[in-house]
Amino acid sequence: MLRKLVALAVTAALFGSGLGSTDALAETVSTERHKVTVSTLADKLEKPWGMAFLPAGDLLITEKSGTLRRVTLSGDISSPLSGVPAVVDRSQGGLLDIAVDPNFGDNQYVYLSYSEADPQGGEGNSTAVMRAKLTANGLTNGKVIFRGAPKYKSGAHFGSRLVFAPDGHLFITLGDRYSAMNDAQTLDNHHGKVVRIKPDGSVPSDNPFVGKQGALPEIWSFGHRNVQGAAIHPTTGKLWTVEHGPKGGDEINIPEAGHNYGWPEATYGVDYDGSIISDKTHVEGTVQPHYYWVPSIATSNMIFYTGDKFPAWKGDLLVAALKGSQVARLDLDGDRVMHEETLFEEAVTQRIRDIEQGPDGYIYLITDDRNGQLIQIKPAQ
Amino acid sequence: MLRKLVALAVTAALFGSGLGSTDALAETVSTERHKVTVSTLADKLEKPWGMAFLPAGDLLITEKSGTLRRVTLSGDISSPLSGVPAVVDRSQGGLLDIAVDPNFGDNQYVYLSYSEADPQGGEGNSTAVMRAKLTANGLTNGKVIFRGAPKYKSGAHFGSRLVFAPDGHLFITLGDRYSAMNDAQTLDNHHGKVVRIKPDGSVPSDNPFVGKQGALPEIWSFGHRNVQGAAIHPTTGKLWTVEHGPKGGDEINIPEAGHNYGWPEATYGVDYDGSIISDKTHVEGTVQPHYYWVPSIATSNMIFYTGDKFPAWKGDLLVAALKGSQVARLDLDGDRVMHEETLFEEAVTQRIRDIEQGPDGYIYLITDDRNGQLIQIKPAQ
Repeated sequence: MLRKLVALAVTAALFGSGLGSTDALAETVSTERHKVTVSTLADKLEKPWGMAFLPAGDLLITEKSGTLRRVTLSGDISSPLSGVPAVVDRSQGGLLDIAVDPNFGDNQYVYLSYSEADPQGGEGNSTAVMRAKLTANGLTNGKVIFRGAPKYKSGAHFGSRLVFAPDGHLFITLGDRYSAMNDAQTLDNHHGKVVRIKPDGSVPSDNPFVGKQGALPEIWSFGHRNVQGAAIHPTTGKLWTVEHGPKGGDEINIPEAGHNYGWPEATYGVDYDGSIISDKTHVEGTVQPHYYWVPSIATSNMIFYTGDKFPAWKGDLLVAALKGSQVARLDLDGDRVMHEETLFEEAVTQRIRDIEQGPDGYIYLITDDRNGQLIQIKPAQ
Repeated sequence: MLRKLVALAVTAALFGSGLGSTDALAETVSTERHKVTVSTLADKLEKPWGMAFLPAGDLLITEKSGTLRRVTLSGDISSPLSGVPAVVDRSQGGLLDIAVDPNFGDNQYVYLSYSEADPQGGEGNSTAVMRAKLTANGLTNGKVIFRGAPKYKSGAHFGSRLVFAPDGHLFITLGDRYSAMNDAQTLDNHHGKVVRIKPDGSVPSDNPFVGKQGALPEIWSFGHRNVQGAAIHPTTGKLWTVEHGPKGGDEINIPEAGHNYGWPEATYGVDYDGSIISDKTHVEGTVQPHYYWVPSIATSNMIFYTGDKFPAWKGDLLVAALKGSQVARLDLDGDRVMHEETLFEEAVTQRIRDIEQGPDGYIYLITDDRNGQLIQIKPAQ
């Protein structure tokens, strides 16, 4: 009962200064297996990047410039929540993903990933992750539980998606910082890595490089480029990631402890100017992608759909993308991709930055624009 | 030496009356991994359906109306070879596939699949397979080694691709005869089946339904629709097939002995008029497709590319299609499809009916037209 009262209080406090709501405009779209409606619930988000559902059904949404807002499914957008860390809002950097603790009901913890300036005053920056408590007045008790190393002067490739494994560990997906791409192959830095920590920031003793000379113990897997999507497979419990390739070669991987995913030694893409990064698509000792796109669709986040509202999509992997404002639906049989369908290319007109499944079983998208949208996908009547 | 002399004699005898050759017109095409030329070697084939390379490098090509020709890579087309069985040249029926015996050098056997009229004079027809010896004067010693049962009055869905397994058994892929689609689920007929026989027509004792009451012993797998493509995986030695779905739902399968592939109980397509054949994509006891297309690309034959001329395509599955005059390149890691690329959509303008790899490592296509083409794919210089 106390928790419910707290939630109500949060709602009352925040929406007094709401930025106003938008009437949902529903467009009906036919897909291979379902006829759906695509509705814009809000369209005044400023470059939103990550979203996470609270158990009560509201969303927390980050905006890249450094604001965090609570948004209702009626489209009410709160004023900025306090307690958010300072971010480097430059190029691809800023306030990025948000995750809600699996035990949020007990601990009210949320987790934010963001690009952090060098605390020593240097010119570099890195991805960092803060844990904080959500209260009626915003975030409190903020603690930085992860700081990428080294600080590096670049506005590109920060990753960074946050997902909890079934065993309670937190995966943080990172980027190679573009000009530091070769770092993805060495273990003395966090560039181009997937990292696995405990929610308090400590390192699990069974991480693959714990105790290895010269290796950072947070590292779970390496040889990645810019991993901006991650999800846990609903039956195997394994981490799946999706990363931006260069020009061509966006990849889905199933990162296993200690494995090397090849970047930049092996890639299915070329550099943005067409020059060759590697003429190899496979190098001994590295793992081939589970699935890849050429040309790139510019993958953002992904989910395994587990709800009952779209029965034919149950178990499918839905990969959101910036290019073509699309969601790629991958029909899976076990882990194997049997088929790809492109969804919402026409109905959505802005780059899709995040995708989530709501507690209601509907699918939600946010789009990456100055007038960014919150979009709801429902079965058509 | 004797064999070589025979081959020379065949060439001399046949090309005296050649239909003339066509100068190759080469178009250069860029693909993801290779720049290639697409050249038309011949364009006066009449609705060719199947082709097979002879060890000497010439091709045998069937024409649907019932003629078999020998064709050189310089584009010389022989006059019709004698000894070809009578066919029912109606709608999709006619002279269909051709295969060359793995021991052709010793036995000169070739195999033809075709639609055969009811020998009892009834109105029905079925797929049949004849084995015959190739001589300088055409085919001799023809023996029908397979007759589909029952004879059925339809011009549709005959299959029928012929491939040899590494153990010497012959797989024949069949169709469901369209209006007899429900037969695909019962074992007392050959409709919608893959069949496995010895090259002399006898039934291998380890076929899955040998000795089963009411089941035809030739059956290898069932629940297929219209299987027109088949190939043996170069490392596993397993049979892979590709079948036409209805509107949507072309499927690749890896048919295992005795397994049910679901048609028409489960499908990813709908009937040509849009009506529902089954609302299920998966039924307990049936195997999901390995990969499928919606919308259909109208798959014809396929090969695993094993040559050295296109190194980046080695091990890939190349699936030819009638629709879009395309070859779908499926990049495989083991059995798993990692990526699909569409090849030759612009450079080829007619429906592609068969695809083969030549002894020279180049790729060959024939197109399904009154002025059907023989096309050669080579690396561009």
